[in-house]
Amino acid sequence: MDGIITTDDSWEVAGRRFRSRLIVGTGRYKDLPETAAAIEASGAEIVTVAVRRVNTSDPSAPLLQDFVSPERYTYLPNTAGCHTAQEAVRTLRLAREAGGWNLVKLEVLGPPPYLYPDMAGTFEAAAALIADGFEVMVYCADDPVAAKRLEEMGCVAIMPLGAPIGSGMGVVNPYMIRAIKAQARVPVLVDAGIGTASEAAFAMELGCDAVLLNSAIAHAGDPVRMARAMKAAVGAGRDAFLARRMPRDYRADASSPTKGLIAG
Amino acid sequence: MDGIITTDDSWEVAGRRFRSRLIVGTGRYKDLPETAAAIEASGAEIVTVAVRRVNTSDPSAPLLQDFVSPERYTYLPNTAGCHTAQEAVRTLRLAREAGGWNLVKLEVLGPPPYLYPDMAGTFEAAAALIADGFEVMVYCADDPVAAKRLEEMGCVAIMPLGAPIGSGMGVVNPYMIRAIKAQARVPVLVDAGIGTASEAAFAMELGCDAVLLNSAIAHAGDPVRMARAMKAAVGAGRDAFLARRMPRDYRADASSPTKGLIAG
Amino acid sequence: MDGIITTDDSWEVAGRRFRSRLIVGTGRYKDLPETAAAIEASGAEIVTVAVRRVNTSDPSAPLLQDFVSPERYTYLPNTAGCHTAQEAVRTLRLAREAGGWNLVKLEVLGPPPYLYPDMAGTFEAAAALIADGFEVMVYCADDPVAAKRLEEMGCVAIMPLGAPIGSGMGVVNPYMIRAIKAQARVPVLVDAGIGTASEAAFAMELGCDAVLLNSAIAHAGDPVRMARAMKAAVGAGRDAFLARRMPRDYRADASSPTKGLIAG
Amino acid sequence: MDGIITTDDSWEVAGRRFRSRLIVGTGRYKDLPETAAAIEASGAEIVTVAVRRVNTSDPSAPLLQDFVSPERYTYLPNTAGCHTAQEAVRTLRLAREAGGWNLVKLEVLGPPPYLYPDMAGTFEAAAALIADGFEVMVYCADDPVAAKRLEEMGCVAIMPLGAPIGSGMGVVNPYMIRAIKAQARVPVLVDAGIGTASEAAFAMELGCDAVLLNSAIAHAGDPVRMARAMKAAVGAGRDAFLARRMPRDYRADASSPTKGLIAG
Repeated sequence: MDGIITTDDSWEVAGRRFRSRLIVGTGRYKDLPETAAAIEASGAEIVTVAVRRVNTSDPSAPLLQDFVSPERYTYLPNTAGCHTAQEAVRTLRLAREAGGWNLVKLEVLGPPPYLYPDMAGTFEAAAALIADGFEVMVYCADDPVAAKRLEEMGCVAIMPLGAPIGSGMGVVNPYMIRAIKAQARVPVLVDAGIGTASEAAFAMELGCDAVLLNSAIAHAGDPVRMARAMKAAVGAGRDAFLARRMPRDYRADASSPTKGLIAG
Repeated sequence: MDGIITTDDSWEVAGRRFRSRLIVGTGRYKDLPETAAAIEASGAEIVTVAVRRVNTSDPSAPLLQDFVSPERYTYLPNTAGCHTAQEAVRTLRLAREAGGWNLVKLEVLGPPPYLYPDMAGTFEAAAALIADGFEVMVYCADDPVAAKRLEEMGCVAIMPLGAPIGSGMGVVNPYMIRAIKAQARVPVLVDAGIGTASEAAFAMELGCDAVLLNSAIAHAGDPVRMARAMKAAVGAGRDAFLARRMPRDYRADASSPTKGLIAG
Repeated sequence: MDGIITTDDSWEVAGRRFRSRLIVGTGRYKDLPETAAAIEASGAEIVTVAVRRVNTSDPSAPLLQDFVSPERYTYLPNTAGCHTAQEAVRTLRLAREAGGWNLVKLEVLGPPPYLYPDMAGTFEAAAALIADGFEVMVYCADDPVAAKRLEEMGCVAIMPLGAPIGSGMGVVNPYMIRAIKAQARVPVLVDAGIGTASEAAFAMELGCDAVLLNSAIAHAGDPVRMARAMKAAVGAGRDAFLARRMPRDYRADASSPTKGLIAG
Repeated sequence: MDGIITTDDSWEVAGRRFRSRLIVGTGRYKDLPETAAAIEASGAEIVTVAVRRVNTSDPSAPLLQDFVSPERYTYLPNTAGCHTAQEAVRTLRLAREAGGWNLVKLEVLGPPPYLYPDMAGTFEAAAALIADGFEVMVYCADDPVAAKRLEEMGCVAIMPLGAPIGSGMGVVNPYMIRAIKAQARVPVLVDAGIGTASEAAFAMELGCDAVLLNSAIAHAGDPVRMARAMKAAVGAGRDAFLARRMPRDYRADASSPTKGLIAG
């Protein structure tokens, strides 16, 4: 009976098709086995990797690739730790040279302690990267004007924050996420801010195409169980969006004798 | 790898053990085939039935039992439509005589349009039913004093509202749900108010043992898909609760000019 | 020009008429001079006094009455600290004998740590007090069925909590406060939970007749300034309610591609 | 007694000092007498005027200046209706030529239906205006990186939105407003989104220096009364901020027999 509704609900970014709508980070875990176990449990098909944190100097240290196979997962290099357009562009060029990755996640962050997206730097870097042939998924403010412009420049996915990186505050401004989605012709992903399962489901219920998160899993008490929770939550939110929820209505139910919970 | 965390996470009410933490209603659907398909997709093991709405007069009309097998599902008779203790007690006595059901869901509702639990009537009916040998799962206000008293009287599960029946407002007062759960030694279920998947997940993240809902599925645009969403959402919320979420933390005040927003 | 709108906006409880819609407590201050200064700044005409905390044994200790004149303020004795109907009734009988006070505030609280209203005890005490000729303003849960019943019993004002005493959580469930107000024919006051000025204004915007608070002033860093803030906030909320706010409107969906966000 | 706390609490922008922390718009009213009455009731010392809407062609039409005296109020020309940097700059140059106004409010809005600040256009216009000797108060997104940069460019006040213009949604993202305020050395005003009194008070409780609003007054059922409400609300919010609110704490009060409202 379940089968009736299990039509294909995959999504596409930059010409690649995915079934999972959850993208996960690879940092902040205790160790690489835990990283691998959590990613496995999350069901993610795309994992994002901070290029600047990748081990390149110590030949005896374990490698992410040995635990999270690039054959199985789509690696999405990101520019975490870059605070200027120049740094971000240079970082992704290095990544392309080293690994051939062309589909990238751009983030240019403002100074601490806020680590909010630096939109001026983001525009500058996006322009340079697109001119350079990259396919750019872009982390950005929850600003519908900026989001539209990034799409028009050629970004392949728009990724507004739910809340600042690592804050676990959820989707603080759902109105703007919805506004960004309403006008977009490329995928929209909530990236950053998600802290627990209900928040991931909520992001999907807003109509987003996917969710990207890292700390919510890596910093949970039990990362592997939280990864499983996130997998289920993203699916639940997507299904709930497609199923079209009942109206929020502060009146009693239609089956009751008289209608209207409140007069005013 | 998933298998590592799939320890048994069943729960028990009145000596019966269940794996699903989602209880669903059987009313408000288009027809009985839709009812059956949605219940199947929800993964529920317990279904609640409004005794007063059960067809008893028209012998040619289809029967719920023919679509939702009492062999497979635990039927939980409820007193929807009862506005006095007397009505509720009489209704459940009839149900016991007819079907042998001893485990019941008591609800005594105030007058329309609010349909808020009538707690005085609820206490009166609960006392009579418990004296009469029933095992009473009780729908109630989000009132921790009343909840504790209902437990001390012998109710086998406490079921505070998230929001009024049919409102789809979610869990309006999470503090009180948590307070009720913190002191309870019997299962606590959020019953009524859930409107979509993220809200069901949120109820479970508060530590509740299970969720009971009806309109959220039956009144969705696509009830079967929403049932599937709810199944996943309840599982996600339960796992997220057990996994212990990352802290919500947004340090952005003047007193911490240099400290980072995030720990990791 | 201001004068145009300064029509009389007084309210009445138990046949007495007041202009201030802010009732304040007298406890939890550093000392009696601070108590007096804060009450003065609040503009309150009614002050509520915990009978059980009134000094009766030490003849040399300062008296509230010497700082907050019973000639100038209407004293409203309350039953803070009473956890049973018997205690509450006895306490108010003593207060009437001692001071002649007939208009009283009843509160019967559940056990710590929650200190939530004990509604069963509240009903029992209210019945006894009304039978005994008291005019009862009653602190209660945000439960519209209970509220209506308390009014029908003869309570002269219904005072649902915004949030538990001393929590400063604001009005957690505005829907229920509105439901209680919509059906009431006696004054409805939010009592408990208010933590700051905007929350007091919000309570008044819901249509409440007045607000009662204590900790929000007494536990502020600067109680006298907070008292002044509360006076202004209650007036602001009342005026905003009467002025009828603009609609909340955020049209940002795909179905209105050209329509403006705003009407004007 | 009130006098004790009535120390001077004025604020300064671009070397001018004001006592009122409420700036109001002049548009969207029924007629000019209503505009004048509402502004009077609001207590505002600064009024903002959409240069593009000022009547310049019909010599027989009434003039705002005849109702709202430029002698008494500081006129703050704004660029409402401008969707490019060029339009905004040209509009304010015209205003300066016509009226000598040098202190201006810049807003460059994105396309309908969202009317969200166009930050790229805003930066461009701000740079041109500052180079041209204007003192620029700037309407902007709730983006702390952009806000800091606008200040560093020389803007004399930062005015992040609470919510889109005319939406009446309140302050949707208080965390970002606080972040902007925490790092600012020029005044921060919430501009746009405020719908009612409690929301204006809340904006001030976040520590903002002032609030700018228009629709909340002009589109209320009774604009003059709402103007009075806003005056009181802004004062209340400011006082509450200075008084330092009690902690939000979901535990019972210290004065109660046992502590700790919830264990977990």
